[in-house]
Parts: sequence; C-alpha cells; structure tokens
Amino acid sequence: MQMPDKLGIGIDGGGTKTKVLVKKSLTGDVLFEKKYPSTNYNNIGVDGLEQVLKTIYTELTEKFGKEQLANASLAMGAAGIDRPQDEVIYREALKNSGFDCNFEVFNDAYIALMGGNGGRKGALLITGTGSIAIGISTEGKEVRTGGWGYMTSDDGSGYKLGIKAVSAIMDSYDEIIENTSLTERVLNYYGIKSPEDFMDLIYIDKDFSIDKIAAIAPIVQEEAEKGDAAALDILYREIERLVAMIKALAKKMKTNEFRLCLAGSLMLKSDIYLRLFKAGMNKSLPGIQICEPLNEPAYGALIIALGEGTVNE
Amino acid sequence: MQMPDKLGIGIDGGGTKTKVLVKKSLTGDVLFEKKYPSTNYNNIGVDGLEQVLKTIYTELTEKFGKEQLANASLAMGAAGIDRPQDEVIYREALKNSGFDCNFEVFNDAYIALMGGNGGRKGALLITGTGSIAIGISTEGKEVRTGGWGYMTSDDGSGYKLGIKAVSAIMDSYDEIIENTSLTERVLNYYGIKSPEDFMDLIYIDKDFSIDKIAAIAPIVQEEAEKGDAAALDILYREIERLVAMIKALAKKMKTNEFRLCLAGSLMLKSDIYLRLFKAGMNKSLPGIQICEPLNEPAYGALIIALGEGTVNE
Repeated sequence: MQMPDKLGIGIDGGGTKTKVLVKKSLTGDVLFEKKYPSTNYNNIGVDGLEQVLKTIYTELTEKFGKEQLANASLAMGAAGIDRPQDEVIYREALKNSGFDCNFEVFNDAYIALMGGNGGRKGALLITGTGSIAIGISTEGKEVRTGGWGYMTSDDGSGYKLGIKAVSAIMDSYDEIIENTSLTERVLNYYGIKSPEDFMDLIYIDKDFSIDKIAAIAPIVQEEAEKGDAAALDILYREIERLVAMIKALAKKMKTNEFRLCLAGSLMLKSDIYLRLFKAGMNKSLPGIQICEPLNEPAYGALIIALGEGTVNE
Repeated sequence: MQMPDKLGIGIDGGGTKTKVLVKKSLTGDVLFEKKYPSTNYNNIGVDGLEQVLKTIYTELTEKFGKEQLANASLAMGAAGIDRPQDEVIYREALKNSGFDCNFEVFNDAYIALMGGNGGRKGALLITGTGSIAIGISTEGKEVRTGGWGYMTSDDGSGYKLGIKAVSAIMDSYDEIIENTSLTERVLNYYGIKSPEDFMDLIYIDKDFSIDKIAAIAPIVQEEAEKGDAAALDILYREIERLVAMIKALAKKMKTNEFRLCLAGSLMLKSDIYLRLFKAGMNKSLPGIQICEPLNEPAYGALIIALGEGTVNE
C-alpha cells in the first residue's frame, strides 16, 4: 500500500487512443483525465510512442509539478506489449519521455481484466478487431487462450467475421452457396461494383488493413439478425469457437465458476451475437457469469498503480 | 489452321520457371525446348519480365532467324495474368522484347487446361499454393470457381492446409483441442522451439510468404495418413470444399459428365488426399472422370499457337 498522498497514474495505450487517468486513491476524486493519440509502437514507431509520452509527461508536470510526479506510481497497459522485448521498449520510452517515478507496463488485455472485474480476478473476453481470452487461475496465475493474430487465430473477432463475409460473397458469386444479402450491403460499404473488385481491395490496395475488413463485422451481425443464411452460418461457427476458447480457459483457470467480463463493441453492441454467445456458454459452462466491464481499462491500470489490485480477491 | 511450315511457340510462364516449347505441328518434332526464370511480373516487375522475354527472343532468333520468327504464332500463359490490365502488360512486354509475330496471352490455368485435356474441353482443378477450378461449358464458355486468393478463397490449397495446421497447433497449445503430432513435425520443419514463435515467423519476419506456409502441406497429409485427428480434420474439411467447388463448376459447365484433370503436386503426390477427393467426388458427381494431365501447360500453349485447340471437341 502506498501513502495516500501519492499520485496514481493509469495509462491505457490503445491502438487508436491513449487514456490517462490520475487519482490519489480509487475512491478519491479524478485529478486528471485526458485522451491522447495511439501509443501502439507497432503502428507509430518508437519515435511516435516517445512523442505522445513526452506530451503526457509535460502536461502532467504542468498540472502536478516535477516533485509530485517523481513520487507518483504509474501503470501502463498497451496494445503493443505482447512479448518481453516489447516491455523493454515501453520501459525505455517512458524513461526517455521524462518519467522518473515507479512504473510498470502490461499488455492491454491485462489492464482491461483489472478494470473489467475490479481487480485481479475472473476472466475477460475481448472481441475487437482481434480476439483473446485471459483469466486469473485459482492459483493466481495469468492464463490465456487465443489472440495469436488474424491469420492463425482471432476467432469470433471483427476481422474473422469480416473476412468470412467476403469469402461467403465470393462463394455466392461462384454459385457454391446460395445468394446472400451480404453481397449488396458489403459491396455498397466499400463502394465497389463486383465481388471481383475485392481482389484489388485486399491484395493490391496498399492501404489495405485488417481493420478495413473488421469494419464490416456489424453488417454480418445485422444481416444475421434479419435471417440471412450465410451471415447466420458465420456467426454460429464463430460463437462455437469463442465458447471453445472459454472452455479451454476455464480448464487452465481450474474453475468453472467465475465472472467473465466482455470487452469490445463486437459483442456488447450486437444483440444477436451476445444472445448466441450466452446460449452457447449456458449450455457448456452454466457456472460462468457473463458481465459487462465494471470499469474501463485505464481504471484497471490505476488499480495497479495504486497497489490495490495485487491481492487475489 | 496455319501453314504447316510455320513455327508454333508455346510459353508457360509459371511463378518459379518459364517453359518454352516450339514445334511446327503437334505431331511433329520438338524444335526447341528450354526453361527460363519466372515471368510472373507480380514477383519480378515489368523490367524483370521484359528481361526474360528478351533472352527468349534472342535465343529463338539465333535458332530460327528473324524472318521465320516474324511469321511464327505464339501463345503464352502466365501466372501473373488475372485481369484485363495484366493482359495489356504482357502484350506490351512481348512487343518490347522484340516479338513481332502473332501472339496471344492467357491465364496460366487456361493453358494448363488445354494441355491437361488435350484441347478446349473438360475441366481442370489446380491445387498448388493456391487453388482454382476452370472448365469449358457445353456452350464453349470458360467458367471458373475459386482462385480468389489466400485470404478469401484457395480452399484445398497448400496454403490452406498449411495455415490450418498452424492454427491447429495454436489450438492444441491453448488446450482447445487435443495434442497433435503436427506440433513436433512443423516446429522441427521451421526450426522453432515453441508454438509462440509462429508469431515472429508469420507477423514479424519480413521474409514471410504464403509459400512458406504452403510448404508444410505435405506434412499435414503425412500426419493424416498416420491417423492424427487434427490433420485428418483439416483434410476432410478442405476436400469437402474442393468437392463443393467442382459441384458449382459442373453447374456452370451445364454438364455432370466431363474429364477433370488434376494439376499441382498437392493432390498428385498424396495418396490420402487423392483418395479422399475421389471418394467425395464419386458420392456427389459420379459422372466426372478424374485424370492426371495428358500434357504439360507449355504444350497447352502450343495447341493454341498451332490453332489446333479452337474447336470445342
């Protein structure tokens, strides 16, 4: 436990934005709260990362003064931290940006788990552009399933829904499957005229990104809701995979009874996707309580910074 | 029909090598036969393409003289010709390289079909790094299914078998599925120690290519033959998709009775893959005769050059 007058700084370094949250205690007032650009060095480079962190450091110094900042405790979770070598890069970047206080760095899924469940407990399923499930075992160990990237994993993710929609459109164009309402909607979305134009979009366009494909996931959910067979087929298969991921996670957590917090708009904003997932989970693992996150990931980082999450509750 | 003293030049421009075949008639002697480097401009650029074509032109001129070459008839199929704009690039490249005879350019699948079935008839299924099925309809129309690239299509291809093997290894590592013998064999193949190392190999290694993934397809076939459940599961699903591709192709060809020629080592060199495919086809479409190619693609190009393949036999 730190002294109550010390600053706790929580940073959520997401792929599109970075959120900074400062408090002296979890129940205390919010002393600083601001959004900054992305701090995923895979996208913006190490220089870009340091630039954003320097801006944050400067603004925090202006607000709290150098001395108070040096005594602060900081925790940062970032989308770019997957391997030990990434941790080193983020530690160096924080130092080079001026931060001389105590700090720790984590994968963004970990701070989302801490925020979502209000501490180091339970599990978290993220279904965004990618997907991953992480949890804390009964022995206090961090465990995970999935999250191995768009080519080899990421089941139930926005990318998977999107790319399977394009495949279904090609299959329908080839007359391998029946017509699907996905064709018209997705072609309109991308502003292309024929399924053949996907080839330019996916394999030739230099601006192609997996986010562009993940962006059509809500269309798949909407068309499934309206009863399109191809769209429904995609959802059923992906939900089946998500349930299998959680089943394996429960095995690693050594318990079938825990709180599973859902993160990412893909499930929270789609009635049908959430409904199918809950039905699948209820059948396989009825002891798991499916919930929305209690708090945002930046709050999860703050829990760590304030030292209030280290006890396995 | 051209005059019997005219040269016919068939060129098969593959992804790894280019084969040139020259005859005066299909039943006549081979006058010239030689292999050159790749002429897929997607890999070597337009300059690289022209360089290889110039070498071919020079060597043919040395052999046959300028006049005979100007009167020749040339047909080229190339792996880089998928769209009308690609055709323009190959036509220009042939001109710029010195070829002033009559020439036509085609997708490499088309010359493989011509060679494999000995003329413009029947169908062809290629399962290499990618996959595509093409055929000639009863009305003489060219039709196709599949072949839309590794991210959205290419079922039953080497890439699909390979990437699904990596996914199965990650699933096994995550304890979503049982242990698979693919893990040890594929890790050994790539010289890596843990399934986590695939992340470096696939997403970070700048030399990563889909061919690298397709290269492990024979391992999947071998482990399936030995009874590994994960490997068998991959083969069953991909064969099911290949059969669906041919079913749709038959619908477009407006006949269920034709010769289907198989190309690509993936099926011709694997007993189990060929056996499963034949079993699946026999169940769905017993009227289709599955065969090995009668002739190589360069011979298919020669058939076109000599004008002996334009009649729908």
